[in-house]
Amino acid sequence: MKYVANGIFSSYMPLNRIARKIERIIREEMDAIDGQEVQFPVVMPASLWQESGRYESIDKEMVRFTDRSGSPLVLGMTHEEAAVSLVRDYAQSYSKYPFMIYQIQTKFRDEARPRAGLIRVREFTMKDAYSFHTSQEDLENYYAKCHKAYENIYARVGLPEVISVASDSGIMGGNISHEFMLLTPAGEDSIATCKECGYRANVEAAECIISDQRAAVSDELTLVHTPDIHTIEDVCKFLQRGEKNSCKAVVYQRNLDDHYIVLFIRGDLEVNETKLTNYLGCEIHPAVITGECGLNAGYIGPVNLKGDFTVLFDRSLESLNNLSCGANVNEYHYTGLDMSRDLENAEYHDFAKVQEGSICPHCKKPSITVSRGIQVGNIFQLGTKYTKSMNMTYVDNTGEAQYPLMGCYGIGIGRLAASVCEAHHDEHGPIWPLAIAPWQVHLSAVRSDNAEVRAYADKLYAELQSNGLEVIYDDRKVSAGVMFSDADLLGVPFRLIVSPRNMKQNIIEIVSRDKSFSVNASMDAAAETVLKILADAAIKSDKK
Amino acid sequence: MKYVANGIFSSYMPLNRIARKIERIIREEMDAIDGQEVQFPVVMPASLWQESGRYESIDKEMVRFTDRSGSPLVLGMTHEEAAVSLVRDYAQSYSKYPFMIYQIQTKFRDEARPRAGLIRVREFTMKDAYSFHTSQEDLENYYAKCHKAYENIYARVGLPEVISVASDSGIMGGNISHEFMLLTPAGEDSIATCKECGYRANVEAAECIISDQRAAVSDELTLVHTPDIHTIEDVCKFLQRGEKNSCKAVVYQRNLDDHYIVLFIRGDLEVNETKLTNYLGCEIHPAVITGECGLNAGYIGPVNLKGDFTVLFDRSLESLNNLSCGANVNEYHYTGLDMSRDLENAEYHDFAKVQEGSICPHCKKPSITVSRGIQVGNIFQLGTKYTKSMNMTYVDNTGEAQYPLMGCYGIGIGRLAASVCEAHHDEHGPIWPLAIAPWQVHLSAVRSDNAEVRAYADKLYAELQSNGLEVIYDDRKVSAGVMFSDADLLGVPFRLIVSPRNMKQNIIEIVSRDKSFSVNASMDAAAETVLKILADAAIKSDKK
Repeated sequence: MKYVANGIFSSYMPLNRIARKIERIIREEMDAIDGQEVQFPVVMPASLWQESGRYESIDKEMVRFTDRSGSPLVLGMTHEEAAVSLVRDYAQSYSKYPFMIYQIQTKFRDEARPRAGLIRVREFTMKDAYSFHTSQEDLENYYAKCHKAYENIYARVGLPEVISVASDSGIMGGNISHEFMLLTPAGEDSIATCKECGYRANVEAAECIISDQRAAVSDELTLVHTPDIHTIEDVCKFLQRGEKNSCKAVVYQRNLDDHYIVLFIRGDLEVNETKLTNYLGCEIHPAVITGECGLNAGYIGPVNLKGDFTVLFDRSLESLNNLSCGANVNEYHYTGLDMSRDLENAEYHDFAKVQEGSICPHCKKPSITVSRGIQVGNIFQLGTKYTKSMNMTYVDNTGEAQYPLMGCYGIGIGRLAASVCEAHHDEHGPIWPLAIAPWQVHLSAVRSDNAEVRAYADKLYAELQSNGLEVIYDDRKVSAGVMFSDADLLGVPFRLIVSPRNMKQNIIEIVSRDKSFSVNASMDAAAETVLKILADAAIKSDKK
Repeated sequence: MKYVANGIFSSYMPLNRIARKIERIIREEMDAIDGQEVQFPVVMPASLWQESGRYESIDKEMVRFTDRSGSPLVLGMTHEEAAVSLVRDYAQSYSKYPFMIYQIQTKFRDEARPRAGLIRVREFTMKDAYSFHTSQEDLENYYAKCHKAYENIYARVGLPEVISVASDSGIMGGNISHEFMLLTPAGEDSIATCKECGYRANVEAAECIISDQRAAVSDELTLVHTPDIHTIEDVCKFLQRGEKNSCKAVVYQRNLDDHYIVLFIRGDLEVNETKLTNYLGCEIHPAVITGECGLNAGYIGPVNLKGDFTVLFDRSLESLNNLSCGANVNEYHYTGLDMSRDLENAEYHDFAKVQEGSICPHCKKPSITVSRGIQVGNIFQLGTKYTKSMNMTYVDNTGEAQYPLMGCYGIGIGRLAASVCEAHHDEHGPIWPLAIAPWQVHLSAVRSDNAEVRAYADKLYAELQSNGLEVIYDDRKVSAGVMFSDADLLGVPFRLIVSPRNMKQNIIEIVSRDKSFSVNASMDAAAETVLKILADAAIKSDKK
């Protein structure tokens, strides 16, 4: 993998071979659930995206340009619009449903923060699938089938430990969606799981349940002088109260027009920006609080807050009393805030991020743990979002026009390969599972300038190849040390070592990349032994 | 793969399967000449193309845009720059040479005139390969090997009739290049071939040889009044001379600044714009002759032509005499033009297009014929054009830094599929060759609502699949007529017909798509018979 530009890479041969094997596994699993492979274009007319409304709603992630004649075009970052456009003229009768189409294609997303490595890149190859249905029940059945197909894919590429979690649907729309996650400290997503009931969700999507009770006696609202105190920690320390007893202000601005959004939340909690964005229906960024904007940085509170702001309240504050908060005056806070008494008209919504120890939304026990994970796939029930906006209909069996329901299902190929490497490596390099290894066998001819070594290794190479094995043959004139460390870096599951010393003993060494075994085979029976070891390994990996 | 009743997918999915088989054949042939598969990005930084100088020299064909941070990017239309960038750090010693890397990837060219169908599209999938060498001799040897690999590819996909012709190198640069052409009246390229010696070249690249002699006696240069006469035909008719005896002006403008280029050529010949563009080193377009430009439309001639024009002479005029030409005055021509006498300082170059009956540049006989063809691949000896401009060097065995030589080798996948269809079809649809057919067998269950038909066809389908055959199974409840015409449209080489009538006779019909044969097999031996027919056909097609 070589860096070409920020988030754009060229890939070398081994990774290419791995990608091809992953693609084959994905194709087999998609075909097994009646998927039909198609190919959408990378470059698409803007008009398609204007139809669905996403030309406007998607921000700078989508690359836009014009062709030589001035027609606006975009680079495909996902293909719901293309899928609807492909099938809407043909799937006009209920008798054609259900069906699923999929492609494996290059996509480009102009990510704000592409990161090193293959996890978050701008250009990537993805399998994306789109299914079409005439009822929610049929969509749900197919969604479950595809969920199972995804589990098969992860198991076959060597990641049986991948779990699915409920997720936020983001720019895709629709209500129900799942992400497939490889749990690893190197991941960039946070996943909430319940130790008690098995509930699992991306932190972005997990509901935050609050169980706090108000105190029996409400103090009076009291103005307190709090000079040179700005952070919530400082305020709480100064007032000798826990953060739980404070009402914190977090301020954002709309990307579109910089309008201010002031969100109040219990002092010990953090804002889940995904929930906030979904609630607002627009993109936001952390606010820049200027002298003129009317907000008093460090002293913002819900009482007597005046100005053209959108004011929101997190559910964590609902009906609490005896809270501290800013007084909207320099160097002053209030104590004794009673939400019910002092802010009668406040409405409460869920904007908070679940934390370690949060209450599980499913079993209601305080048993949430938060782990890191790499997202290696996602599936969505889109419903009629695209078919309605793009006016795709079919005639049902009573002659009525109906909008079909859609599901969509994605897996990034390069990211999956990188995740396998993340899960299967040691300090010397990757240890590729047999099913996706670039080659099955690494033949190392140590001292290939020795005529006998050369002759025997050439013969063994030909014999293994004629038996259908994929063999990489290292006949460079380099030291055994260089040869073996390069082989470790390549990560091929089995290594055969032909050397003058081995030949004197009439053997070759067969070593597994994970160092779990090493055997000697007699030179005559070398190919036969290798074939047997590989067959056994394939059976073992199928069983996993 | 089970047939789903839906017209569109039968046109999309089959092409995808065909493309995949073509890709597999190409990969095998590239691997056989030691190619290493890589993957370059679709989106590339402009800086790479600025290094080679092509960011400026390529016109609007290349899509340019900026990312969210304002960095200029381009869509890859070819990958010489990416190839050099990928390997230049690695290949710094002569011992690493020669090597070849290739990819199969989406490309985008913003063609001025995209055409319907798959022949000239803007977005396409291409196999492009790049080889690197330390001597011209080594490059030439590899070039010949790749030429042979290309011949293998065409033969294997069912186009053994593809020929290679010498071609113009265009924006790629370098001197020697060949195109592979499928000769067909539907083609958009013109190919000059010599009936006598086998010389073959794209008309764009073919040298035009002229054998005209000057007359023994030169007439005087004489001004003639030629009112209301504008075209070269009219002038010649009026003056009662052949077009061969006239000196025609053809006017172009540079795209960059609209500077005028006046090219004089013998009246019966046409200008080869590719040769002119190559000579000028810039893009041109046919001129718009305005009142103010100083050119006298219809009366332009080489004598007394004054103004800021580039004036060029085609070799066809060299040393001719007794020619007619414009006099640069309204309604006047000259007769008796003697190029040697009247235009002493003229320099002559080859700008003319070869025609039917032109003289062969190789055997010098007047035996050129011009045919139409589809270009289905091209190969180039690039030399050091890219390695020099992008400063890629290696250290040779004497310790000196040297620029490696490059070759590049392209095949468009979709265009090749379309060309196979062009060469192999009848009035009912395509007749795919077995090696790239989307499926090998088309199983038609006529009256699949008949329980016996259904049971037998299901069993046969399973049996054929378990024998490794690719079968498309049509079990729709449609008439035999619809079923067969859809099957013709799909073009699968062999069709098996299960029907109540056939079952009564205890047979199935096996029919080839090209209608060359039809046999009945007993129901019990159906699978066995099909396997034998396919094996025979595969052997026959290998032999071709």
